[in-house]
Amino acid sequence: MISILVFLVTLGILVPLVCCTLLIPGKKGGVGIRPCIFLLSAFMVLTTFAQANQDVYYVRRATLFEQLPVGKKDIIMLGNSLTDGAEWNELMRNNHVKNRGIVGDIIQGYYERMEPILKGQPKKIFILGGVNDVSHDVSGDSIARAMEKLIVLIKTRSPRTKIYLQSMLPFNNEVRMWKLLKDREHVVVDGNRALEQVARRQGVTWIDLYPLFVDENGRLKAEYTNDGLHLLGPAYLIWRDAIKKYF
Amino acid sequence: MISILVFLVTLGILVPLVCCTLLIPGKKGGVGIRPCIFLLSAFMVLTTFAQANQDVYYVRRATLFEQLPVGKKDIIMLGNSLTDGAEWNELMRNNHVKNRGIVGDIIQGYYERMEPILKGQPKKIFILGGVNDVSHDVSGDSIARAMEKLIVLIKTRSPRTKIYLQSMLPFNNEVRMWKLLKDREHVVVDGNRALEQVARRQGVTWIDLYPLFVDENGRLKAEYTNDGLHLLGPAYLIWRDAIKKYF
Repeated sequence: MISILVFLVTLGILVPLVCCTLLIPGKKGGVGIRPCIFLLSAFMVLTTFAQANQDVYYVRRATLFEQLPVGKKDIIMLGNSLTDGAEWNELMRNNHVKNRGIVGDIIQGYYERMEPILKGQPKKIFILGGVNDVSHDVSGDSIARAMEKLIVLIKTRSPRTKIYLQSMLPFNNEVRMWKLLKDREHVVVDGNRALEQVARRQGVTWIDLYPLFVDENGRLKAEYTNDGLHLLGPAYLIWRDAIKKYF
Repeated sequence: MISILVFLVTLGILVPLVCCTLLIPGKKGGVGIRPCIFLLSAFMVLTTFAQANQDVYYVRRATLFEQLPVGKKDIIMLGNSLTDGAEWNELMRNNHVKNRGIVGDIIQGYYERMEPILKGQPKKIFILGGVNDVSHDVSGDSIARAMEKLIVLIKTRSPRTKIYLQSMLPFNNEVRMWKLLKDREHVVVDGNRALEQVARRQGVTWIDLYPLFVDENGRLKAEYTNDGLHLLGPAYLIWRDAIKKYF
């Protein structure tokens, strides 16, 4: 979901540019700049609409989370679309498990929406995040810094909460090309290394999911996904099995 | 979410058409048909990508539901994006409540994915659906017929399941214009009337949510939504309060 928007935005910039190049008035006359402006506008409408659609989803989900109380026995699944897409209370067979994933979210986004979670002083928080940051051209080290800031916030505001930091999963640009993740497989690897150091430094539990999902070429196993980034049903069982001992 | 795709497809057809009209060779020469074909292709890529993105989400969600067991004590929330977007077990404070909503789904879609639900012989099923059918230019009567077929399937395959049929909610094209819902407010009203008759005929509980969400102009109350179709967090509490006596 993150990248459809980015893809639209990219197309929205590139296509009009190409059009403008193609349509520049030649010796035999041409269409001039007006249709190009028209096209540019059309694409901008399109991309703005797509972006707005993600924003409204984000706000709806965040306002829902503000309404849902968190308590001292609760286990919070904090994340992006990977977390959002599952039914965690069912997967973990535990009604204290609460989904706090939002499609497209970045680590700074988690930070900014922690209040309704932290005021409940939950028992545990499982965090998975970073791939949307990668798509925003952020380095592994920056991802780790953002994550450390988030962990410090949790520890400060809710000292009894046990924190579980999960690694980023690989993606697979052979299944579908995610333009903004192109050739960034190494950022996930670097980021995970840096995240593991954050976990060690902050004394939180590190859960390395990456090896469970990666193929021999460093990509998300093709059979686990239908778009190269998100997980099919059976792949969620692998994730569940990897974390169930912490519940 | 349903309509971003439809909107993209519409734009994808309309804009190239307009472009072709604008760019037809005039007396002073023009660009001819080639750029139009190029533009048409670009838009088709865009719309295909968007459609594919919805399809892959649908498949991921459906394959997850195939993995999640349903049991005799369970209460199923069956629906489209309105149902998908909530955390029903939290809203209802009941771990037997299971979200079976998928963004963009139509009633025939529910029918085709009932197997993993019905084989568990759940205690109750709450159904809300139809607005995506409305956006596909289906009449209120057709919606009711599809719903009746679904209810008959549930009654046949899982006779002890108690069925709760919820009305469609209004939408609000002043908040945002959903092109495929344009001037179709009456289809929701007609559809609800026909759905209520289905509920009576089939002996299932009818829950009329519509009056709780509609304003004096027949639109979804603006304060309940940020896109005219989907619900903000506080609006889910109204829905919850309306159905909690049936849990």
